Amino acid sequence: MNYREVSLKKHGEWKGKIETVCRVPVDSREALSLAYTPGVAEPCMAIHNDIEKSFELTRRWNTVPVITDGTAVLGLGDIGPEAGMPVMEGKCALFKAYGNVDAYPICLRTKDTEEIIKAIKIMAGSFGGINLEDISAPRCFEIETRLKEELDIPVFHDDQHGTAIVTAAALLNALKLAEKRIDEIKLVINGAGAAGIAIGKFLLKLGVKNVILCDLKGIVCKGEEWLNPAQKEVAGITNLSLQHGTLADAMKGVDVLIGVSGPHCITKDMVRSMADKPILFTCANPVPEIEPEDAKEAGAFIVGTGSSEHPNQINNVLVFPGLFRGALDVRANTVNTEMMIAAAKGIAECVTDKQLARDYILPYAYDKNAHAAVAKAVADAAVRTGVSKLKK
Amino acid sequence: MNYREVSLKKHGEWKGKIETVCRVPVDSREALSLAYTPGVAEPCMAIHNDIEKSFELTRRWNTVPVITDGTAVLGLGDIGPEAGMPVMEGKCALFKAYGNVDAYPICLRTKDTEEIIKAIKIMAGSFGGINLEDISAPRCFEIETRLKEELDIPVFHDDQHGTAIVTAAALLNALKLAEKRIDEIKLVINGAGAAGIAIGKFLLKLGVKNVILCDLKGIVCKGEEWLNPAQKEVAGITNLSLQHGTLADAMKGVDVLIGVSGPHCITKDMVRSMADKPILFTCANPVPEIEPEDAKEAGAFIVGTGSSEHPNQINNVLVFPGLFRGALDVRANTVNTEMMIAAAKGIAECVTDKQLARDYILPYAYDKNAHAAVAKAVADAAVRTGVSKLKK
Repeated sequence: MNYREVSLKKHGEWKGKIETVCRVPVDSREALSLAYTPGVAEPCMAIHNDIEKSFELTRRWNTVPVITDGTAVLGLGDIGPEAGMPVMEGKCALFKAYGNVDAYPICLRTKDTEEIIKAIKIMAGSFGGINLEDISAPRCFEIETRLKEELDIPVFHDDQHGTAIVTAAALLNALKLAEKRIDEIKLVINGAGAAGIAIGKFLLKLGVKNVILCDLKGIVCKGEEWLNPAQKEVAGITNLSLQHGTLADAMKGVDVLIGVSGPHCITKDMVRSMADKPILFTCANPVPEIEPEDAKEAGAFIVGTGSSEHPNQINNVLVFPGLFRGALDVRANTVNTEMMIAAAKGIAECVTDKQLARDYILPYAYDKNAHAAVAKAVADAAVRTGVSKLKK
Repeated sequence: MNYREVSLKKHGEWKGKIETVCRVPVDSREALSLAYTPGVAEPCMAIHNDIEKSFELTRRWNTVPVITDGTAVLGLGDIGPEAGMPVMEGKCALFKAYGNVDAYPICLRTKDTEEIIKAIKIMAGSFGGINLEDISAPRCFEIETRLKEELDIPVFHDDQHGTAIVTAAALLNALKLAEKRIDEIKLVINGAGAAGIAIGKFLLKLGVKNVILCDLKGIVCKGEEWLNPAQKEVAGITNLSLQHGTLADAMKGVDVLIGVSGPHCITKDMVRSMADKPILFTCANPVPEIEPEDAKEAGAFIVGTGSSEHPNQINNVLVFPGLFRGALDVRANTVNTEMMIAAAKGIAECVTDKQLARDYILPYAYDKNAHAAVAKAVADAAVRTGVSKLKK
């Protein structure tokens, strides 16, 4: 099946992948008097007297906007806010199907960091959490950091942390199969944008010691003139041997390659140059860094991609519905590192030792038990770390 | 029934009057490949090449946010964005139930005109139209005017025009019963805020000649120092006899009183001072300007209120679902006066001569045929006036 052609046709038939429904009776004078005027004045005044009640008397407790500016959509780049909508709608559909979260897409016609922050801040009273999506680096770092500081609801940039969490889950299980220890592996990340940097930082927190990032200009190394501020920061904690060179240089002898870059930038020779039992997570969307068949021909031990067309889909679909479900369930006021680590381990543990195989290192994206497990792990971690605002 | 107490209890049980649902299959690898990655890249690129396609390939064609800043909620005033949410959710529920429009509430934490305009402008690519709600005057005028100028989707401030349209519909039928000609009546509007001014302007367009507006400070008259710019403008086309005084003075001898002000500001004596067969539309919410029983005791011929607790509910519930349905159906790029007049006449005509009675001048708010009639009238008017962007 040519998914892209069929998908275009289906989108034309669907005319939208989500819709809003009415949950209450409004079919009589009495019903209107309760759901609308005059009765509605009472819940309004209850919230006016205690804003926290907006989480009890409206849908706020379960509502999360998927917000983008359309600058980094899939691997397609800066295609504009309206063009990003099919992806955002898709996320909203998955939020509902897998996490029972009420999500809706908001695509912003601006690339200005301050305008994006301002717009989201003034909307935030309508929502239980904020999912940032497909906003290009380095703006996405400041946008997320500032919103996390200034809002008291969970703010989560999915491209950074969703990707980092699911990649970490995949890595935990792949290393089990390859019989390698997380603190002994060498690991290269190609793509030093939002996702790549977030993956690098998160894996360091999980116990990986030897991480190198690459970008189009080569290996990210302290002192390089072309580094942007976010890359400069991560250069201080990765590539401690101060290696220089190209992606091909970086990949020589490493155990794991994680690609969050662009189509077909990795060759068979580069795979052949890796260490024994090489693990490749080539997650560029919609076209991976190297086709899985080519990687396997060149000796890859485990291959994962971002696409559902191949085995081992390493897609943040496994993360965001459950992560927000868990955070919303306990009225978490943030998403912290402990919650993210709990999510990664929760996903990895969904695959039993018996099930674990080179073509099955992660649960399927549509496995509802996996999403429920993530939700529970995240909610527990939120309560444990004291960020739940639920009354005892 | 004490609607307010019961409503508070119900809102606590409902925990939200709307929700988002997923409209497409996402329960297998193949389904995900079509609704999400990799297939979704194709509709994204189709929209990137032609933004207009966002109305065909996503839910944009049917999506309308209900946006407020919480400054003029019902008759409760400036209660804040979060506290406005139960009303906004109620509107979204009615949008769906009566117009099949996918609406969602966005409550803004700012009262700054420019910030509100900016936020809505940058969100507009996500929507098929914009419903402004419960934003206080005079800011609401500039916000609507600027957005109408700068966006190519329908922008509609419901408190102004929804109220004006349904009031006009009620007036057309009430005058039939009272056997008075629209161009001969004297009419007073109490409340020279957003709704009152919009009603005044709209009734002049419908054929009323003699309109006087009142506000807390008295009759709106050219030259008064206390007038704000919007009142100054309307003073130039109303109260042509330059009458001064109080509401009580204004009401002497008039045929129609329209109240969009506050609770219990009209006395029985004021009703007794009106012309023969006085018509009172006392629409303050949740408490009317005078209780209907009192108005009738004082001789009112027809009484309408904004509430569903009494007969003749004059509530914009009858307008906005059908109006947006009609506008969205023909991809109108604005809401013009002809569309609004068509809506008013469409509502009035839903009541047949045989049905028409002093306690039944308008169809019930929950009458689906009425909403369908409004939609058709509005769509026809949009096509007739050339504002439909549908391809022929």
